[in-house]
Amino acid sequence: MRTVTVGVLGSGTVGQDVLNLIERRESVFSDLGVRIEISGVLVRDVNKVRDVPLGTRVTTDLGFLQECGVVIEAMGGVDRPLEMLLPYLRSGRPVITANKALLAERWDVLRDYALAGTLYYEASVMAGTPVIGPMSTVLRASTFTRLQAVLNGTCLYILNQMEGGKNYADALAEAQALGYAETPPTLDVGGFDTAHKLAVLARFCADGNFPYSAVEVQGIEDITQKDIQDARAAGERIKLVAELERQGSGWRATVAPQRLPDNHPLCTAGASRNALVYEGEECGMLIFAGGGAGGMITASAMVGDLLDLLIGFPGHVPLH
Amino acid sequence: MRTVTVGVLGSGTVGQDVLNLIERRESVFSDLGVRIEISGVLVRDVNKVRDVPLGTRVTTDLGFLQECGVVIEAMGGVDRPLEMLLPYLRSGRPVITANKALLAERWDVLRDYALAGTLYYEASVMAGTPVIGPMSTVLRASTFTRLQAVLNGTCLYILNQMEGGKNYADALAEAQALGYAETPPTLDVGGFDTAHKLAVLARFCADGNFPYSAVEVQGIEDITQKDIQDARAAGERIKLVAELERQGSGWRATVAPQRLPDNHPLCTAGASRNALVYEGEECGMLIFAGGGAGGMITASAMVGDLLDLLIGFPGHVPLH
Amino acid sequence: MRTVTVGVLGSGTVGQDVLNLIERRESVFSDLGVRIEISGVLVRDVNKVRDVPLGTRVTTDLGFLQECGVVIEAMGGVDRPLEMLLPYLRSGRPVITANKALLAERWDVLRDYALAGTLYYEASVMAGTPVIGPMSTVLRASTFTRLQAVLNGTCLYILNQMEGGKNYADALAEAQALGYAETPPTLDVGGFDTAHKLAVLARFCADGNFPYSAVEVQGIEDITQKDIQDARAAGERIKLVAELERQGSGWRATVAPQRLPDNHPLCTAGASRNALVYEGEECGMLIFAGGGAGGMITASAMVGDLLDLLIGFPGHVPLH
Amino acid sequence: MRTVTVGVLGSGTVGQDVLNLIERRESVFSDLGVRIEISGVLVRDVNKVRDVPLGTRVTTDLGFLQECGVVIEAMGGVDRPLEMLLPYLRSGRPVITANKALLAERWDVLRDYALAGTLYYEASVMAGTPVIGPMSTVLRASTFTRLQAVLNGTCLYILNQMEGGKNYADALAEAQALGYAETPPTLDVGGFDTAHKLAVLARFCADGNFPYSAVEVQGIEDITQKDIQDARAAGERIKLVAELERQGSGWRATVAPQRLPDNHPLCTAGASRNALVYEGEECGMLIFAGGGAGGMITASAMVGDLLDLLIGFPGHVPLH
Repeated sequence: MRTVTVGVLGSGTVGQDVLNLIERRESVFSDLGVRIEISGVLVRDVNKVRDVPLGTRVTTDLGFLQECGVVIEAMGGVDRPLEMLLPYLRSGRPVITANKALLAERWDVLRDYALAGTLYYEASVMAGTPVIGPMSTVLRASTFTRLQAVLNGTCLYILNQMEGGKNYADALAEAQALGYAETPPTLDVGGFDTAHKLAVLARFCADGNFPYSAVEVQGIEDITQKDIQDARAAGERIKLVAELERQGSGWRATVAPQRLPDNHPLCTAGASRNALVYEGEECGMLIFAGGGAGGMITASAMVGDLLDLLIGFPGHVPLH
Repeated sequence: MRTVTVGVLGSGTVGQDVLNLIERRESVFSDLGVRIEISGVLVRDVNKVRDVPLGTRVTTDLGFLQECGVVIEAMGGVDRPLEMLLPYLRSGRPVITANKALLAERWDVLRDYALAGTLYYEASVMAGTPVIGPMSTVLRASTFTRLQAVLNGTCLYILNQMEGGKNYADALAEAQALGYAETPPTLDVGGFDTAHKLAVLARFCADGNFPYSAVEVQGIEDITQKDIQDARAAGERIKLVAELERQGSGWRATVAPQRLPDNHPLCTAGASRNALVYEGEECGMLIFAGGGAGGMITASAMVGDLLDLLIGFPGHVPLH
Repeated sequence: MRTVTVGVLGSGTVGQDVLNLIERRESVFSDLGVRIEISGVLVRDVNKVRDVPLGTRVTTDLGFLQECGVVIEAMGGVDRPLEMLLPYLRSGRPVITANKALLAERWDVLRDYALAGTLYYEASVMAGTPVIGPMSTVLRASTFTRLQAVLNGTCLYILNQMEGGKNYADALAEAQALGYAETPPTLDVGGFDTAHKLAVLARFCADGNFPYSAVEVQGIEDITQKDIQDARAAGERIKLVAELERQGSGWRATVAPQRLPDNHPLCTAGASRNALVYEGEECGMLIFAGGGAGGMITASAMVGDLLDLLIGFPGHVPLH
Repeated sequence: MRTVTVGVLGSGTVGQDVLNLIERRESVFSDLGVRIEISGVLVRDVNKVRDVPLGTRVTTDLGFLQECGVVIEAMGGVDRPLEMLLPYLRSGRPVITANKALLAERWDVLRDYALAGTLYYEASVMAGTPVIGPMSTVLRASTFTRLQAVLNGTCLYILNQMEGGKNYADALAEAQALGYAETPPTLDVGGFDTAHKLAVLARFCADGNFPYSAVEVQGIEDITQKDIQDARAAGERIKLVAELERQGSGWRATVAPQRLPDNHPLCTAGASRNALVYEGEECGMLIFAGGGAGGMITASAMVGDLLDLLIGFPGHVPLH
């Protein structure tokens, strides 16, 4: 039985659920001959009450990074986690993250680590639904042609409420009240979170160096009740769709509201599920759907990455 | 650039498509620093015209196995491929196969090789739709609770035709005429092909030693137009469903026709797609759908397995 | 070309030579696809003039350890390096060291890391003469029976000078003046340095848990001119010999002056060479000899360890 | 406990000793989690009585190669073993061999396999004395300058007998009677066996593509009693010396009788031991000596290679 030391950056919902899930799945780790030891959990306030396993060492001091064989980044943000992780990454040690903003916006710095197989980020797109794993491995046998996806739960919720008759402002307010949307909500409703995720996917399907800035982004802020009802009348629904397809010798990546027929897989996936349609010349059309957010759903993918790492799989390697 | 020698057993539709896809994706292999060399293709009749890359060495002599670093089994059957593969497998070399009958029925012999990571079989269930990869890796972080799946294209086609008004015998005859169903069609319509696939899945989700004989199987032969119309009237459809869930301290695996609501993911996946609903305590409900048969769709998963193998991933390891 | 970050603790003769040799052998590293980047060199005084490659970052701040993929420990001492290395070692990262005192005396703490293959220490015994590599690998095929070795250069020098007619005190003073012996010289002339090395070897040959305290140690302080001349008269020479052999069901490890015939391999190895005679039931008697000290000789083994690590070899794993 | 299947080609003294040693060291293999299964032993005559473990499957049929995860070649010769091994080698499976003639003379065919790490041949030079392991790994940190070696036991014996007063013809006849020299003895006394070994070493020290034909060879057939006595009178001895050193921008490799001072390491190594002096700019002069022939001594290195392979070390990779 070997001991593997794990550090966690951040202890919001996802961080807490990661810690709890690691404890809960102890037997899966022992089957691999591994005992997980939590070296430390970086928090902003050590006195805050948290739902974490008894005895977990929470601290505001990054010193424990020195002891970590793996780091799970669950803090969010872009520059703050990057600054903390960079010296650690230079040592060649692996990072597990769900942070699509970081991956999308700092790819110039992170790509070499991804190519070296030290970044694991299944959770960054569609949370617990495995799409990055397949795209970075088995699906490469097919010639990619197109993908369409619904990747943001807040927009999904708002548009769904609007179909029920609410106007945009009320639906948004409700989403905020329920904690689905942040304040300000721009990252979600402006399409930027979806665009982050699309950039991450494009690096497996289209171009390993695909820049976030190349994604054309339009949000749902201007969708009206009339738009929704016009679509319904035509047997269609409006979704915020991420789309990637060939354009000339390059690729076009867009995030924008689209009217889709009722029976389109992005519609039938249901009101609360992220969904992705992947098309390849040889594999045909594939559909993936599942919960795209939530602490434990996200944690399930991050702990899944940890298992893959311990089995000896490299991280998610983009095209090169 | 290292050379990896590959042998192919069988050159029906899948075997031919594997050979063509390996040639077509040459650049993906060179990105990995690998040149694939086909050592030989085992056929029954060397004079038959085949759609394979020019110069492919087809032969009725198994001698080329000695030179193979990887073998792709695409012949079908159970005892004949097993007999051919066993001495080869003892040497520790890897096999890629889509042969669910072989996996389901000879697990007593094959399990040790699967545990050693030398068996790759993404294509054996849902062909090109990646479910075995995720189940054998990242999804293990979640506590599995239940799966439901539609896994046989022939039954899907027949039931669909019956919804259009045909009776069972006519729908079956049509499926046979189109080449979807074999003669006799028992393997498909009797539910046994579905049961093979369920047994394969159960070894990742429930018990690494799950015996094929433990699957309770009922086919679609007795479904009548009346059954279909009764279901339609209730807003439901009949599908041949593979299901696996907890029963007491063990597991219950069944294959049987079920009435499912119109908007159930196994129904919305469409008339020609296999689909699988995976439920885990932490990851929630996940949906996978895609074409479940066809030469190139199947080949895409087998060549995908080959890529994974070359990257250094072990094969699909069941629970232990 | 991947970048591997290396940190160096200590910049005495050995540390400086390691840095220079890494630079000099740059082409050997590029052949392996590796670019070495020195993250930092820990020193006591940053202003001291050192013979190191231009631009080498010397510092008194251990912070650079966070960035290191490999650490080369060249500081000497026992508790100070251990304290610095422990958090780093917990992360699973590798250490290359020539520090036999540390290995011998803190094996209770270090053994698990050695078993995990993260400790490389070819240089700790006989410096650049490869004995630990063979003992930890290919020689395990033979049943070990006995080893005898001359492992300390200072004692070798003193005894050699005494053969030339000097008395012990003068010979020691000369060795100190030449910088061969430390002040106080107990570690060398008391046999303790030799005992450290024998303990390290015993863990590959006899018992992976062999305690340093079990080595019986006698130094050369009481050797007189008369002893030397009596031996010479009998065609023999006096050497400080480390010896390990079976005793009952266990092992006996001793360090003591011995009279050996002139033509014994430990004598013919020459006045300035360490030598080791390894006896195995199947491999017979093997002789290894070479310079056992000196900055560049030691550095050659440490940089050799670095090459082995980069090729993918695990560190030196004791018996388990 | 995983099973690894091993095939053995040839069952002369070395082959038999390999089989016996594998059985005798069973516990060393189980410590690595491995059970060795002998798939078959290729012999010329299945009825001959052999000293091998009970139940060993001896056969004249090469078919068992299909089942082998490792092959140990102990048959000697050049083209016959090569022809048998080539299809097997193409599959990427490893070979352990002591056959320096094969390595020296068919390097054009074998080099790619050696570069790929699938050839293990510690036993091919100096049998059980580990020189190829160190040269192919840790010693690469030093800049190689020169090597001198005595590598052939038959010549060593004959020259030793001549020092005792015998003439060449009598000494040779005696060596043949004792089974040390083959009939005809040209391979040994003509220097060709030594040249084979020097070519093997040159590929680690000088040039990974060093051709056997570039070794200048002179044997001991013309050495007279007078030569021997002249040398003795000058305090020297005659040895058949393999030597490799820089010449201009290339390398000069010679095998020839040389007069060496009595206290030269190649002389002090003793009458029955192979010896090698390795000089590197940084590591200084290193001396290796040990028995260079004999079934069990050779077997100890071959089983040592098997252990290294099972631990995960690549084979002996020449310079590239």
